[in-house]
Amino acid sequence: MKELLDQYLSIRKRLKAYEYALYLISWDSETEAPSGCFDYRGEQIGVLVEESYKIETSKEYVHLIDELYKNRQELESDLRHEIQEVKKHIDKTKKIPMNQYIAFQVLLSKSPAIWADAKNKNDFSLFKPTLKEIIAFLRDYIHYLETDDCIGYNILLDEYEPGMTIEDYDQFFGELKTRLVPFVKQVLAKAKNQTNPLSQFSFPVNEQKKFCTYLQDVLGFNRTYGLMKESEHPFTSGSGSTDVRFTNHYYEDNVVSAIFSAIHEMGHGLYEQQCDPKYNGTFNQGGASLALHESQSRFYENVVGRSYEFWMKHYPQLQQQFPKQLEHLSLNDFYQAINQVKVSYIRTDADELTYSLHIMLRYDLEKAIFVEGLSIDELESKWNALFYEYFGLEVPSVKQGVLQDIHWAGGMFGYFPTYALGSAYSAQIFHHMKKDLSFKEVMASGNTKPINEWLKTKIHRYAASKYPKEIIREAIGEDFNVKYYVDYLINKYSHLYGISDYEN
Amino acid sequence: MKELLDQYLSIRKRLKAYEYALYLISWDSETEAPSGCFDYRGEQIGVLVEESYKIETSKEYVHLIDELYKNRQELESDLRHEIQEVKKHIDKTKKIPMNQYIAFQVLLSKSPAIWADAKNKNDFSLFKPTLKEIIAFLRDYIHYLETDDCIGYNILLDEYEPGMTIEDYDQFFGELKTRLVPFVKQVLAKAKNQTNPLSQFSFPVNEQKKFCTYLQDVLGFNRTYGLMKESEHPFTSGSGSTDVRFTNHYYEDNVVSAIFSAIHEMGHGLYEQQCDPKYNGTFNQGGASLALHESQSRFYENVVGRSYEFWMKHYPQLQQQFPKQLEHLSLNDFYQAINQVKVSYIRTDADELTYSLHIMLRYDLEKAIFVEGLSIDELESKWNALFYEYFGLEVPSVKQGVLQDIHWAGGMFGYFPTYALGSAYSAQIFHHMKKDLSFKEVMASGNTKPINEWLKTKIHRYAASKYPKEIIREAIGEDFNVKYYVDYLINKYSHLYGISDYEN
Repeated sequence: MKELLDQYLSIRKRLKAYEYALYLISWDSETEAPSGCFDYRGEQIGVLVEESYKIETSKEYVHLIDELYKNRQELESDLRHEIQEVKKHIDKTKKIPMNQYIAFQVLLSKSPAIWADAKNKNDFSLFKPTLKEIIAFLRDYIHYLETDDCIGYNILLDEYEPGMTIEDYDQFFGELKTRLVPFVKQVLAKAKNQTNPLSQFSFPVNEQKKFCTYLQDVLGFNRTYGLMKESEHPFTSGSGSTDVRFTNHYYEDNVVSAIFSAIHEMGHGLYEQQCDPKYNGTFNQGGASLALHESQSRFYENVVGRSYEFWMKHYPQLQQQFPKQLEHLSLNDFYQAINQVKVSYIRTDADELTYSLHIMLRYDLEKAIFVEGLSIDELESKWNALFYEYFGLEVPSVKQGVLQDIHWAGGMFGYFPTYALGSAYSAQIFHHMKKDLSFKEVMASGNTKPINEWLKTKIHRYAASKYPKEIIREAIGEDFNVKYYVDYLINKYSHLYGISDYEN
Repeated sequence: MKELLDQYLSIRKRLKAYEYALYLISWDSETEAPSGCFDYRGEQIGVLVEESYKIETSKEYVHLIDELYKNRQELESDLRHEIQEVKKHIDKTKKIPMNQYIAFQVLLSKSPAIWADAKNKNDFSLFKPTLKEIIAFLRDYIHYLETDDCIGYNILLDEYEPGMTIEDYDQFFGELKTRLVPFVKQVLAKAKNQTNPLSQFSFPVNEQKKFCTYLQDVLGFNRTYGLMKESEHPFTSGSGSTDVRFTNHYYEDNVVSAIFSAIHEMGHGLYEQQCDPKYNGTFNQGGASLALHESQSRFYENVVGRSYEFWMKHYPQLQQQFPKQLEHLSLNDFYQAINQVKVSYIRTDADELTYSLHIMLRYDLEKAIFVEGLSIDELESKWNALFYEYFGLEVPSVKQGVLQDIHWAGGMFGYFPTYALGSAYSAQIFHHMKKDLSFKEVMASGNTKPINEWLKTKIHRYAASKYPKEIIREAIGEDFNVKYYVDYLINKYSHLYGISDYEN
């Protein structure tokens, strides 16, 4: 056993080094690499992926994992979890015919460009054939991977959020449909004709950056182990707790965008930085799942960042950074402005209240495709019908409808629901956190340290050494429950929109 | 043969991918990586180096190269050159006992920190034991690699500049000693008590950056295949002609520093960008040698960048960027200011005229160590004596003397002379270029395109597919001759300092 383990650790070390090189190349690609370097870069990536793949599929490694898996009861729990996951990954890889897998990867390397072109030309028909091919592969993929325990669309759901099934999501979105959709309609009626006092000003980019640097200190993002940079679409990346990087974007006419993108990404970043460093260099490194990651980013962005209490402390600082623009805007007006609800056709522009309805729509469609056999030819009209059902508006173009997201072009079906689940997790976590901490007091202190510490102890430090459902259960003493999320939203937005008698 | 070649190309592809990953990690390290990530990073680098080393020392590869080398007459010239160089590299590697080599690498991984500490404390004795160890290894190294054709210090010199020997450098520096040293003394006497009109102003960093961006267009640095970033010490890096990156630094009180660092680094960058793309992904990729690279950077920095003709066209633009500072400074005064001569104890602060004397001093000392057996205990006093001989001044501290450069702490003996050789090459190249181009007319056109084109055709496009001495000979029709360099300097600085009757 000792010998097997040593062999495993030595191969793992090699695999992690490739992962590391590819992480850094990808970070460079998305932030600064000159556009002309990508052909050559593509070849180098190809070689590195292949070198790593050769190790991962070597007889030696596969055999090793089999042996360790058989004897997993002898392993301490971290390693046991890791071996289970590696075994799962290898078994999956083995089930897919290699030629078909490679053909799919080739398809995926081209499909985003085809999607972008179709979106650009506002013409869904240009993307349809590609989307059909992607779905055809995924149907086969599901077929290859089906087991007694897990079939159909569940295969895809489990891939992005371990342990989540159609049944779970149906219950989750069912609750949103019943309680949230009618409430949103009521808020939207009240929100009609609202104007945004922030939209009349220009906010110089340099000053926005300074404020985002200030926010790093407020949130305790550790610059010794991380950095902030720029890119078109904000994202967080890194390798282990000692190297965590996020990007932000800045628009002169929209200071709110940079502020909340920064806080959102720092939520992801804090999760990574607060993982126990013992997991660096292992396959338990990083966050436990997409939804759990999103729960942290949404927690900081919405629960913390869009709270009145947060801005009581930090709005004066923002005013100081932008004296001309904000001197006459009261804290209360600012708070209202950053929590304004309005229908957006575009998911990424959506406010906190309506965001998860955009996700629900996508979940409904994915389920329709993989469970009910919806044809791609019907996808556009189905999208538009659902949008009308949830938001009461006609979708004006495919650009603002079925073609808006890149995910499906990347083959990512089953991914979207994790966004909404993450938001819902954050409300439930908040509910339980408040038993230990006074949110008001923490916010008044000027930084989020006690919150960070709470999340670190209960969630972050475990990294990916346990399944997300396990971590949640141990952290808050109960399983996931959507109720907290809907309660939180209805409570917050009834106050904001003066719907005091709302029945829920 | 066909089969051997295919095998070679396939292994080369793998080796280049590791080189690529390591290039990008190093670029990240030197420009933005958070300080806390280096422990983990070090381990990953170790693995990648080892993976690559395993391929390079595999029986299969060594045998392959042997076979190809035996049949090299059947190869086309590019590939023949490449195989010769690879063979040379492998043979060298084989001659060094592995344990000793690894011990040396470990020593070198620690020595820069020991050097930095000693420099910081201004105490040479703290670094002496390490330096003695480094030199002891290099003496063994020389011993292992000696052949009938190449012995002693020549082994090190050849390593950094193929084909250069003590005899060559003695002749080169001998000429500087005879003709340049007395001239420099005369200029320094005239330059005493000069003040610099630029030092009274402050130049905002953002405006400096804008001007450096303007300079990219003037010099034709292609941003599709490259980028400019910031770091403490400016440098150029990259991988092939499609990914060339350089850094710059900015000091509010010294606009000249950023301007000439940018031009210098773009000289390196243009060389890389103008290599024939067919060499990308081969071992002929990149510049032919350190001295040839330095000849390009010095050419753009000094011959082009510090010329009166260059600033006739671009000084108005600089004035426009800094109207308050430069409005009353004439072109002539600016030209004088950027060409001021004064003794600096520090090599990297030296002006164009005195720079190579700093190098000569280092060459003299390295030769004393490896040829005459100078003890490290005598190094400091010998440094100071030579400095007095060349510049007529007492060295005030080891920080400003023997401890100033990092090179020796990095084991790099034999490297320094390439800096001076590069400068000298640039003057000789200029002499011959002027037969084909009117420098005045090119400069009046506002960009350096015709010069770039000339250098591309004569030098750049060959990348490292030939030896530097060959490239020079074919480019200008003669071998290296130091005369041009001394003539150029004496001519330029006699005019600048009104030493019209100087005999040379």
